[in-house]
Amino acid sequence: MALGEFELIARYFDRASPRGDVLLGVGDDAALLEVPAGQALVAATDTLVEGRHFLPGTDPDSVGHQALAVNLSDLAAMGATPAWSLLSLSLPAADEAWLEGFARGFHRLAGRYGVALVGGDTVRGPLVITVEVLGFVETALALRRRGARPGDLLFVSGWPGEAAAGLRQLLAPGSGSVDPALLRRLRYAEPRIELGRGLRGVATAAMDVSDGLLGDLARLCSASGVGAVVELDSLPLSPALKAAFALGDCERLVLQGGDDYELLFCVPAARSEAVAALATPSCPLTCIGRIETGAGVRGLRHGLEVPIAEGGYDHFRPAP
Amino acid sequence: MALGEFELIARYFDRASPRGDVLLGVGDDAALLEVPAGQALVAATDTLVEGRHFLPGTDPDSVGHQALAVNLSDLAAMGATPAWSLLSLSLPAADEAWLEGFARGFHRLAGRYGVALVGGDTVRGPLVITVEVLGFVETALALRRRGARPGDLLFVSGWPGEAAAGLRQLLAPGSGSVDPALLRRLRYAEPRIELGRGLRGVATAAMDVSDGLLGDLARLCSASGVGAVVELDSLPLSPALKAAFALGDCERLVLQGGDDYELLFCVPAARSEAVAALATPSCPLTCIGRIETGAGVRGLRHGLEVPIAEGGYDHFRPAP
Repeated sequence: MALGEFELIARYFDRASPRGDVLLGVGDDAALLEVPAGQALVAATDTLVEGRHFLPGTDPDSVGHQALAVNLSDLAAMGATPAWSLLSLSLPAADEAWLEGFARGFHRLAGRYGVALVGGDTVRGPLVITVEVLGFVETALALRRRGARPGDLLFVSGWPGEAAAGLRQLLAPGSGSVDPALLRRLRYAEPRIELGRGLRGVATAAMDVSDGLLGDLARLCSASGVGAVVELDSLPLSPALKAAFALGDCERLVLQGGDDYELLFCVPAARSEAVAALATPSCPLTCIGRIETGAGVRGLRHGLEVPIAEGGYDHFRPAP
Repeated sequence: MALGEFELIARYFDRASPRGDVLLGVGDDAALLEVPAGQALVAATDTLVEGRHFLPGTDPDSVGHQALAVNLSDLAAMGATPAWSLLSLSLPAADEAWLEGFARGFHRLAGRYGVALVGGDTVRGPLVITVEVLGFVETALALRRRGARPGDLLFVSGWPGEAAAGLRQLLAPGSGSVDPALLRRLRYAEPRIELGRGLRGVATAAMDVSDGLLGDLARLCSASGVGAVVELDSLPLSPALKAAFALGDCERLVLQGGDDYELLFCVPAARSEAVAALATPSCPLTCIGRIETGAGVRGLRHGLEVPIAEGGYDHFRPAP
């Protein structure tokens, strides 16, 4: 292991950027970047810890993808266009095979959205990865968590619960059967950048589902000062989910599973056609309820209220 | 330990910002920020790992200070004005006493430079802290590592080596005598923000000394395509350093010690009066040599060349 910190950065992370707005990238004390006139800067950061956010031994290619994807998802939830990223890697050793895989997954996703890696830090320590993503959006069009109004329809993108289903199969004792489609959603969740941009001027509020749909919806409601009704019969249950789990489990996975990085958003009923126009075969958009006055989240099945548990993920709460 | 992730953020890190350019801070998917028209965005990130960047048991107040200071130092080295920060904390537990101390040290330093904490992430894991600082600078005036020209005078700020001296005393077996002044430089190094801003339009190149003066100077020379001569007789040896160490040790600490976060910068001889005007009692500025054609760093003592070892800090090289 003769690779030093500076060679490591040069070999895996110092890529020439095609972006003209990177005035100075990797290799100086800080990056110099040009934000378009009239746009607000959007900044988010997320950390992945081995053994918590990904299992030890996970393909480093997918770890590189995930480290960037969770951040891009935050920008998607703002309706922002991602532009630049910084990467802080704490690594037990300069394992070149791991680094090569990680860099490949990271750069592949970055390339898909034109995101330049402009800086970072590399230190020796436990495997902990922090990525910051910077982008921009027209200030008035930014999607926030507050802004939902009673009467708005509540939508979710894609197939929430699939990533959690993949994880559950992976962790099931003695089970050798993991659906590759579910596993792919766990390992290579796609940030909904295009959808987020399409929702500018359409959605009244949005956030990405990272800690579970119900828990995150409760946070959106709290930020907006409203309540919400979720129609359990309307939840999108993917074919892969239904093939692998009983109905009750499917619902729990959809309502409580994290890591899909789908978008949850609210739209006035009059704009629901604009939502339909944003749906694609790989990203269906499902109306799962509506915003109402009050507070908290209620569940309805066949029009009757049923108890639902929020149970979102909290890093500092003991597991129930 | 009943504190959840969201309460933890609300209690320790969600402070109202007095900055009008924070359109949206902690509590949404991402922060929304307003970069002044005509200025470049400056972005840096640094990670601290317990046991590597600070000793286990270190006062969390000083860890909070240091986590922000190392990043502010990167912005100082660009001549930038810091504005916003993001904080990612991986914590073994939501230890409230530790968090209170850490937040106090972080917010104290942030307040001194008007830096708003606008986002972050909090996860359970080994103690690893990543901070990102964002600021701005007039693009044409940004201080880069490249730009040094043969004939430029080479300066260093303050008292490099003091932090490394404090660490050496702290680690000395059986030694109970640590000079509080040296320890303070290790624990509460002051980023040279004002100096960096004063050097805009004055210095041709600059960087902060984080991995050791000689190693970092070699990097500055390499980026600028020049060589440098260091006059060992001109090195600033602080009274505290001289009181505690023999001359040879003092020189080694100044040349190889990191963690002071002093600025190393190059100035055309014709502008040296502008440098003198930037010196203050708490931040003297010392000419320690000059830039020359060629490559690499040479040492001179009484006008004669002497061998000097670079030996800067590299996280992935085994200790010599």
